[in-house]
Amino acid sequence: MSSATNKQQMGLADVIAGASGICTVGKTGKGLSYRGYAIEELAAHCCFEEVAFLLIHKKLPNQQELTAYREKLKSQRSLPQTLKNILETLPATAHPMDVLRTACSLLGCLEPEINFSQQTEVADRLLACIPSILLYWHRYHKDGQRINTNTNDDSIASHFLRLLNNTTPKTLHLKTLNASLILYAEHEFNASTFAARVTASTLSDFYSAITSAIGTLRGPLHGGANEAAMALIQGFRSSKDVAPGLTITLANKEKIMGFGHRVYSTSDPRSAIIKHWAKQLIHNPETKCIFEISETIEAFMWKEKNLFPNLDFYSASAYHFMNIPVSLYTPLFVCSRIAGWAAHIIEQRDNNTLIRPTAKYTGPKQQNIIPIMQRNVQRNVQRK
Amino acid sequence: MSSATNKQQMGLADVIAGASGICTVGKTGKGLSYRGYAIEELAAHCCFEEVAFLLIHKKLPNQQELTAYREKLKSQRSLPQTLKNILETLPATAHPMDVLRTACSLLGCLEPEINFSQQTEVADRLLACIPSILLYWHRYHKDGQRINTNTNDDSIASHFLRLLNNTTPKTLHLKTLNASLILYAEHEFNASTFAARVTASTLSDFYSAITSAIGTLRGPLHGGANEAAMALIQGFRSSKDVAPGLTITLANKEKIMGFGHRVYSTSDPRSAIIKHWAKQLIHNPETKCIFEISETIEAFMWKEKNLFPNLDFYSASAYHFMNIPVSLYTPLFVCSRIAGWAAHIIEQRDNNTLIRPTAKYTGPKQQNIIPIMQRNVQRNVQRK
Repeated sequence: MSSATNKQQMGLADVIAGASGICTVGKTGKGLSYRGYAIEELAAHCCFEEVAFLLIHKKLPNQQELTAYREKLKSQRSLPQTLKNILETLPATAHPMDVLRTACSLLGCLEPEINFSQQTEVADRLLACIPSILLYWHRYHKDGQRINTNTNDDSIASHFLRLLNNTTPKTLHLKTLNASLILYAEHEFNASTFAARVTASTLSDFYSAITSAIGTLRGPLHGGANEAAMALIQGFRSSKDVAPGLTITLANKEKIMGFGHRVYSTSDPRSAIIKHWAKQLIHNPETKCIFEISETIEAFMWKEKNLFPNLDFYSASAYHFMNIPVSLYTPLFVCSRIAGWAAHIIEQRDNNTLIRPTAKYTGPKQQNIIPIMQRNVQRNVQRK
Repeated sequence: MSSATNKQQMGLADVIAGASGICTVGKTGKGLSYRGYAIEELAAHCCFEEVAFLLIHKKLPNQQELTAYREKLKSQRSLPQTLKNILETLPATAHPMDVLRTACSLLGCLEPEINFSQQTEVADRLLACIPSILLYWHRYHKDGQRINTNTNDDSIASHFLRLLNNTTPKTLHLKTLNASLILYAEHEFNASTFAARVTASTLSDFYSAITSAIGTLRGPLHGGANEAAMALIQGFRSSKDVAPGLTITLANKEKIMGFGHRVYSTSDPRSAIIKHWAKQLIHNPETKCIFEISETIEAFMWKEKNLFPNLDFYSASAYHFMNIPVSLYTPLFVCSRIAGWAAHIIEQRDNNTLIRPTAKYTGPKQQNIIPIMQRNVQRNVQRK
């Protein structure tokens, strides 16, 4: 690696890759807004469908528009029979993100975007049916049930929890999941969104761009972090074990997931919100213990490393307290972020330029091809 | 769009996004090398399997290694029954790139990359089986045939042409397709490769990264250009029609595909090579006429716009002269570029940093949320 090509260039950190009117992230080391609205306000006063409308359709809906939007999303929850058959064929042991990536790509074969005038229709369709896809596959392989995904729930949160548990969701769970979906919905040029924009920049179709985003979110350095945070927390039996355990982890230079952020330098504004909801969900000694362990980890990381929890850290506890299986944490991120990805694909198309950077060359100098029969000879000569 | 965020930033043109030892592109406005070997040398002296080995396994093979590699690729051409069943289920009218994107993603469910030590195995598997996937789907829906993809052909070019036509390929066709596969194999941080690297940078799996690349290549500003070039050429009945026709096209400010390049400024070194092969393939008045039209377009574009043909332009004629259906031109690009994508995913992982740029914010200022029941009222007030 040449000194002229540093880690910043490799990761494009702080490099402006374009203009965007969708989101501000950490402009003063903290803070997050979607189209000018602070995340705290959105999480306190809006439902996720309002926020998805804001992102995809570019303004907050009035009551009539919101009602119509809820009805539209409800009407888009069913899955084509071909897709259901294929979900049944996929292995029960498949990674749920591989399932979502494949199903999204497949839907692009079955219900293609013929031209860009259909883009918001495709966005709303995916927003409505991704939870159906995930839970059809999950329930089929877990319970052997071919569930009916046409629920009458007003909200995506309620649709998700009903399909997962086959019962009417608790109000507190609905409120928590609604807030979580809002918090995860959008985050500027994060890696998955940027991948979606790179794909969109060749004027490829909507499904291709979302498929790229799902595959990118899948990685442990991105969407996988909430699953890793849960594994970290569950590695301790009580809060007393945290300090000695993490001291060893840090000494071994192992990465502790759920802390710090590429863009935020002083705090992640989403963490306090999801922590509030996680705390409300404590309902027995086990959940109380997990929350105490989490707070102890938070205090330790701040004291020792000056690192704050990011959204993923307390999301893990909140999901766990609602009995959502760990394997669905990252797919749940997809159910939310689909709104932000869609907004970015639409924005990229509105003023498109092909995204094609360049590389600093660090490979071999120009060399002649040695005829294949002499290649061994050549190596033997060099070895002498 | 703020003046501070120009088209260059939007497209990252000339922005160094990392180091790479794989390929030099247009360092003096022209020229291309893979790991230090000039493209002219590679196309003249190597088979595509040697070049794929060079890209994925980082050196030119000796004869023994090449023989073993050919045998390995041969052994990887069969498809799981589940994948074949699903290919039969996909619509005959699907976009072939949607089929490849879906099948690659699906293979990630069926034969997952459990850890990165398997990466070159996955790369070789995809290199070997992507042509099988494409042609199994194509032949099933075109001819109703469930073809046996386990051919005994030594080369990928021969495997492809045999599955396509169900006959032993002509030597000239093999040589042309071999050269074409070499020319398309690698091109630094082009959009599809960059998408693969963004996906790989979250430490996601190999299939996710290749799936992103396929979806990105699909766009008309990238892989779709050779199909568009064929449409352009076939729009003329004789070379006499070219000048009047293109004069109108240029006056309408329509884009002419197959000319110019983001990186090359004076010529695309691949064009002369594929033009040579296209010329060899002329075998009747129709192909002679198409070649004349192509050369007339080339001369016109140079005289009027100072633009040179890129690889896509004469590739279109070469493929057409071999009776390859236009809908398979971009998928054939995948069969080749998979080698370059694989090399870049491996390189990204070797020294990984999350690729996460930032955006210049151009959206609304911070604003308060108006309660939903007052949103109509507010608009009415504003309208007064």
